[in-house]
Amino acid sequence: MRRWAWPSRAGVVVRGFDQDPGCLARAVERGAVDFGAGSLAEVMAGADAAFVAVPVSGVAPAVQVALEAGVAAVSDVGSVKAAVVHSVEAAVPAGDGVRFVGGHPMAGSDQDGVEGADPDLFVGATWVLTPTERTDPAAFTRIRELVASVGADVVAVDPEMHDSLVATVSHVPHLMSATLMQVAVEASPNRDTLFRLAAGGFRSMTRTSHQAPGIWPDIFVENRDAIVAALDHYLAALAEARELVAGGGRAPLLEFFEHARAQGRDLPARSQEAGPLVELAMPVPDRPGVLAEVTTLAGRHGVNIVDLEITHATDGGVLVMVVPASGADAITGGLESLGYRVTRRML
Amino acid sequence: MRRWAWPSRAGVVVRGFDQDPGCLARAVERGAVDFGAGSLAEVMAGADAAFVAVPVSGVAPAVQVALEAGVAAVSDVGSVKAAVVHSVEAAVPAGDGVRFVGGHPMAGSDQDGVEGADPDLFVGATWVLTPTERTDPAAFTRIRELVASVGADVVAVDPEMHDSLVATVSHVPHLMSATLMQVAVEASPNRDTLFRLAAGGFRSMTRTSHQAPGIWPDIFVENRDAIVAALDHYLAALAEARELVAGGGRAPLLEFFEHARAQGRDLPARSQEAGPLVELAMPVPDRPGVLAEVTTLAGRHGVNIVDLEITHATDGGVLVMVVPASGADAITGGLESLGYRVTRRML
Repeated sequence: MRRWAWPSRAGVVVRGFDQDPGCLARAVERGAVDFGAGSLAEVMAGADAAFVAVPVSGVAPAVQVALEAGVAAVSDVGSVKAAVVHSVEAAVPAGDGVRFVGGHPMAGSDQDGVEGADPDLFVGATWVLTPTERTDPAAFTRIRELVASVGADVVAVDPEMHDSLVATVSHVPHLMSATLMQVAVEASPNRDTLFRLAAGGFRSMTRTSHQAPGIWPDIFVENRDAIVAALDHYLAALAEARELVAGGGRAPLLEFFEHARAQGRDLPARSQEAGPLVELAMPVPDRPGVLAEVTTLAGRHGVNIVDLEITHATDGGVLVMVVPASGADAITGGLESLGYRVTRRML
Repeated sequence: MRRWAWPSRAGVVVRGFDQDPGCLARAVERGAVDFGAGSLAEVMAGADAAFVAVPVSGVAPAVQVALEAGVAAVSDVGSVKAAVVHSVEAAVPAGDGVRFVGGHPMAGSDQDGVEGADPDLFVGATWVLTPTERTDPAAFTRIRELVASVGADVVAVDPEMHDSLVATVSHVPHLMSATLMQVAVEASPNRDTLFRLAAGGFRSMTRTSHQAPGIWPDIFVENRDAIVAALDHYLAALAEARELVAGGGRAPLLEFFEHARAQGRDLPARSQEAGPLVELAMPVPDRPGVLAEVTTLAGRHGVNIVDLEITHATDGGVLVMVVPASGADAITGGLESLGYRVTRRML
């Protein structure tokens, strides 16, 4: 078994725990973690930061263990965020900053578990963080730094926005892929005939239907409301498209396909290079919610926060962040409309 | 410009005509055709067989020219079949065999026109032929031989079945791909944020939405009824899936995804190797429709007809066909239930 040199792990010691001791041993053997721990409490004790990577239903209890152990910055990697984030926050006394920020790396491997470990898995991938107005800025900053250190680009959006977006671009498309396969097979006199007539488009669209169900049922249970809402949008749009086809007019069909094509232009294969960078600095009041306001604004404008720091002073603090120049106007305008006074300089 | 040696053209001289003389000259230059002709009538005069490759609305008139010129076997390559086939057949006196059989090769190139010519384009691809009870058996046999000579596997189904199947596996999926892209972009606060959250599944499913509309509006006009019918099946299935999600039960969702996965097992990347072959022989009455009965039966069972010949005698004829051993039982059973007396031998 190959043992990796983790390229960006300089200065970071990784301690791991898995309820399956064999799995933990293989993780150590591969170099994915430096040391194994004997229990959840043990792995959290004395840690500076923790990533909880368990099925969605187990996230909140494990995060609780981390917070009780005093870990300064905690995150997770679940596919659905609002329920977990609000469950964790409900257990923190009102007024206290929450040292947990929800996370969702948009990367994966065909291989399950530690066999899929790869130091380059997250290079260039999008890693969503979902701070809220209760998130502790220092915890967010630490998690953001760790995520960036493995090569991922952070997008910060609020948990509800995250759940709605992934319902739209991941969960409902997966449901449609499975539905396509089922309907097509039922409509055909014979599966072989069907498959021999299926060209590349059908293969692409049903690709995810071949996956083992795995975590999908849990995701659909956990993100039910957002998925139903997104599905209703799709159903309404498909019903409109049906009328377009039934109408039999060539021109509206041409317009329909041209419009869809225009919407999809520039869909990047991976997240883009940052290009030139701009540093934005602004005084911020010493109150909770500032961080969420700023990061959520960046998420809404699709602006990647390359770096972010809050320095505290007696009369408040200064927030300094680095963003790609291409997004600087949008985010500066947004911040100013929220009442912030922004200064900027090219890097 | 590269000039190919057409590997399987032994004994066949290809004469071409295009309304654009420059295009025709390039086709000759590349070796895609051996000689150019000055008009549609000229290219058809004296030909043994003709393939009409023009947009769907132009197929029937061009086929008419071929039939009037006495071409013994005529086919086309359009994406929709029933309207064209019935239009051609309506112009042939009742009782006469029709020397046209509809065709639809399931292969293509990203390049338009003669620039996409490639002698290997059809190797291993499915080429659908749509004989009817009026199709002249000799015409079908000749077209089938020519199609097989470029390496394609023939699937014969009736025109309505073809149109329904391609609506299901091609036309409606294309519409869904475009709808997905439109709805996703509209649902997102920002296209960049959306695209950064879109993983591989969304990219696969919206792949065809990036195509130039090209012939799609014509296909949707021409195949309107079959597309609306297929779309209604999908809409009903998606509405059912919506209730499954809204119900919030994990077990039915698991069953749903498992079922879709089972339906899609063995979806081949390309059509499969034939493997061992079986020869089936049976006496056939000397009446029209025999060929359509047999080939349509094979199509319904997804059985590739590797070879087919009808020998005529005074008291009727004998039909001999070669099929993969894997499909021999299904097709023998089907033929016997239609009243044919089949003998078979392994090849």
